[in-house]
Amino acid sequence: MWMEKHANKISILRLSGGLMKSFIYFFGLFLGLTTTSVGRAAQVQERILENGLKVLVKEDHRAPIVTSQIWYRVGSSYEPAGITGISHLLEHMMFKGTDQLAPGEFSKIIAENGGQENAFTGRDYTAYYQILAADRLPIAFQLEAQRMRALRLSEAEFQKERAVVQEERRWRTEDDPESLTFEQFNANAYVTSPYRNPVIGWNSDLEGLTLADLQDWYRKWYAPNNATLVVVGDVKPEAVFQLAERYFGPLPREEIQPPRCCAEPAQLGEKRLIVRAPAREPYILLGYKATALGHGSADWEPYALEMLASVLDGGSSARLSRELIRGRQIAASAGASYSAFSRLPGLFLLDGLPAKGHSIQELEQALRQQIRQLRETLVSPAELARIRTQLIAAKLYQKDSVYAQAVELGRLESLGLGWQLAETYVEQLSRITPEQIRAVARKYLISKNLTVAVLEPQPLGDSEPIPGGPAHVR
Amino acid sequence: MWMEKHANKISILRLSGGLMKSFIYFFGLFLGLTTTSVGRAAQVQERILENGLKVLVKEDHRAPIVTSQIWYRVGSSYEPAGITGISHLLEHMMFKGTDQLAPGEFSKIIAENGGQENAFTGRDYTAYYQILAADRLPIAFQLEAQRMRALRLSEAEFQKERAVVQEERRWRTEDDPESLTFEQFNANAYVTSPYRNPVIGWNSDLEGLTLADLQDWYRKWYAPNNATLVVVGDVKPEAVFQLAERYFGPLPREEIQPPRCCAEPAQLGEKRLIVRAPAREPYILLGYKATALGHGSADWEPYALEMLASVLDGGSSARLSRELIRGRQIAASAGASYSAFSRLPGLFLLDGLPAKGHSIQELEQALRQQIRQLRETLVSPAELARIRTQLIAAKLYQKDSVYAQAVELGRLESLGLGWQLAETYVEQLSRITPEQIRAVARKYLISKNLTVAVLEPQPLGDSEPIPGGPAHVR
Repeated sequence: MWMEKHANKISILRLSGGLMKSFIYFFGLFLGLTTTSVGRAAQVQERILENGLKVLVKEDHRAPIVTSQIWYRVGSSYEPAGITGISHLLEHMMFKGTDQLAPGEFSKIIAENGGQENAFTGRDYTAYYQILAADRLPIAFQLEAQRMRALRLSEAEFQKERAVVQEERRWRTEDDPESLTFEQFNANAYVTSPYRNPVIGWNSDLEGLTLADLQDWYRKWYAPNNATLVVVGDVKPEAVFQLAERYFGPLPREEIQPPRCCAEPAQLGEKRLIVRAPAREPYILLGYKATALGHGSADWEPYALEMLASVLDGGSSARLSRELIRGRQIAASAGASYSAFSRLPGLFLLDGLPAKGHSIQELEQALRQQIRQLRETLVSPAELARIRTQLIAAKLYQKDSVYAQAVELGRLESLGLGWQLAETYVEQLSRITPEQIRAVARKYLISKNLTVAVLEPQPLGDSEPIPGGPAHVR
Repeated sequence: MWMEKHANKISILRLSGGLMKSFIYFFGLFLGLTTTSVGRAAQVQERILENGLKVLVKEDHRAPIVTSQIWYRVGSSYEPAGITGISHLLEHMMFKGTDQLAPGEFSKIIAENGGQENAFTGRDYTAYYQILAADRLPIAFQLEAQRMRALRLSEAEFQKERAVVQEERRWRTEDDPESLTFEQFNANAYVTSPYRNPVIGWNSDLEGLTLADLQDWYRKWYAPNNATLVVVGDVKPEAVFQLAERYFGPLPREEIQPPRCCAEPAQLGEKRLIVRAPAREPYILLGYKATALGHGSADWEPYALEMLASVLDGGSSARLSRELIRGRQIAASAGASYSAFSRLPGLFLLDGLPAKGHSIQELEQALRQQIRQLRETLVSPAELARIRTQLIAAKLYQKDSVYAQAVELGRLESLGLGWQLAETYVEQLSRITPEQIRAVARKYLISKNLTVAVLEPQPLGDSEPIPGGPAHVR
């Protein structure tokens, strides 16, 4: 449950007509990656162009299609206070014309060629992709190269897109009580980390943005030496490298100043917040400050936290479902989530809706009892074996999609972890022992590191959310 | 109690040998201003130089002394995330030499002329002052004008001062459990307002600061058109204006970009945090999101909140002292505080230490009961009359000091409210009715707007605070 609910706050996919299906698909995969997927990407070929653009190619000849994805190392966690939301708004503007293309022409050309395309913005990256018949790859490269450095930002389009994004913010966050709770929760769980700000931005910041801000943000981050081009599908690496050289090679590099903000100070005790909003049901969200790969702690710790999340929430036989939903019937839904892969340390999250006749307090106690149990008692080898099997299956399932394979590579590169991690991920997870799971529970999942948000439903009025939101938002 | 405890987190005065007395004096006055002082500054003369410097002069011939103060509109609330603390660190560097002066020479010259001088940094301003025999005013002007645009920032001095500031941070905040609680409290009470950051800066930001950052900050904000020069004492306005023209007139103006960060979104429910730190006693701090002059609410509201604060905490006959400390003996100390004067909306604060044998929970209930009572029952006319008398007395007492008079003018100017407010302040407060006090209690002092921080004492170890801290910190 948590996965669908919150995916859109961590990474915002642009919605366009007919893409609702791939939207759902994408987020399933995306968060699949964060808790359960694994990779063995042995056939990836890498080339770095002279202007710094890194090109990754993975052959997959099962179908005559290809995905081309360009990943920029910029997202909401790069944004200084005052201009939050600028990365996502710029992503919208990337479809509004270049020196050679009229607004909307990019999407029109891809559609005329039978392709699908879209973009998404996350905390740590902004990515654009196309899925096309393999022989149409040059079209994607040509268009994507054009808008890397020659975007034409117009005031009129900017005003329109800002209104679109503000509307998106209204139905995705403000009129969705669980999203609103999640937004408030992040702003309080983190003290200085830029993960405290929503990807879509604070509304007052959106109000204050100017075209000059967007110009500046575009110039600073949209450059070949701040991007990764990932191609997966029915292609030959050498041909792709030549094509990349032809279209992207002439683009000038930019001086990139890495973002300097902001190490999170140690938390000193439990924090709580109440969110009162029109809603049908109460809702609770718990988050423990955790670690991430490459952040000082032993490298196995993030993997152990991922395995721990799978113990709690890895399908219907996992503990939360078995014990809280079906067993004691305290929860109508309950979830756990953690990602080893982020640029900055994140949170280990638990959430849930109480079942009819049960209170938020009971559910909180039950969730905390689950954590306590993991601090005290070792997970059984049989339970771990079941999770390993699931992880390997999820990884295989993911291989079925050229899109998901490319997302994995682009994401790891953009987080600064390197795509090679995709090759060792399953192995690292598989090595985790019951003792290591208990050790990370004891180290991280303690009340000193905890923030709890409780949604207290208020009467539904005119602001009752429209199920699913509007269909078209581009 | 609150006043001494927290003054140093909102405004940091540089401490130098022999100035501990004026330090205490200053903060008494400073927070006196925020809750109880009033003004009638009829004789202020104003002149704006061509380069934008505003000069205010107030004659006071009771003693042959003068204070010269230069107030810059920059402070911690101007700082983007990632470089918090830069205003305060730059203030330290302002004593480290200019094109004409060696490090420390500024202070040496003032001392040789029998003067006192220092500086302080707040959320919304950075100020430098001298107190001298009236005939030495040209010395202050000459020196202050030199360092307005010709500061010489050296890497060696910067490294030294950063270490000094980090040490200051250690003993003022990290080793002082109540200060630490206040810091954590602010970071959680505010979601986006820059008031969430400490004036002294987050330590990781201090670590990351560079000399180039300071150069840039200095260039951006230290300019005649971003400053107010305030002179109070045994002087003639016309002579002061001529002197100002001579020393400050030639300085070039700067393009000032006002800070754009960040409107605070509406709070949606109560928030709580626990701070575990080595301490002898528990401590509780409650803050309600409030308003400030010039921020949309009716103009009388901030005055009504100030009067309300005085009902609770205006000397030993005020309610907190009478009912919680002496009466029920629940609190060892208790305070209330609010300022109508700030650049951005602030908080209405309550705090306290429980008396022996009483718990934090009892104290919290008692403090909230005091607020409830103000929401329900009108303050009596006799009680209001007593507070009015106190306010007028405090204002008269303040007039005794040229320094405090200048601080009032400089502060109002720097907050964008205009020094003229000093003339109407008493009158505005005196007009407040019992109904208005109840109205602001009902509007602002409600649990939706509340954040509560509780200090949970941990055993004192090696990090036991040194009472009073080191004597010399410059």
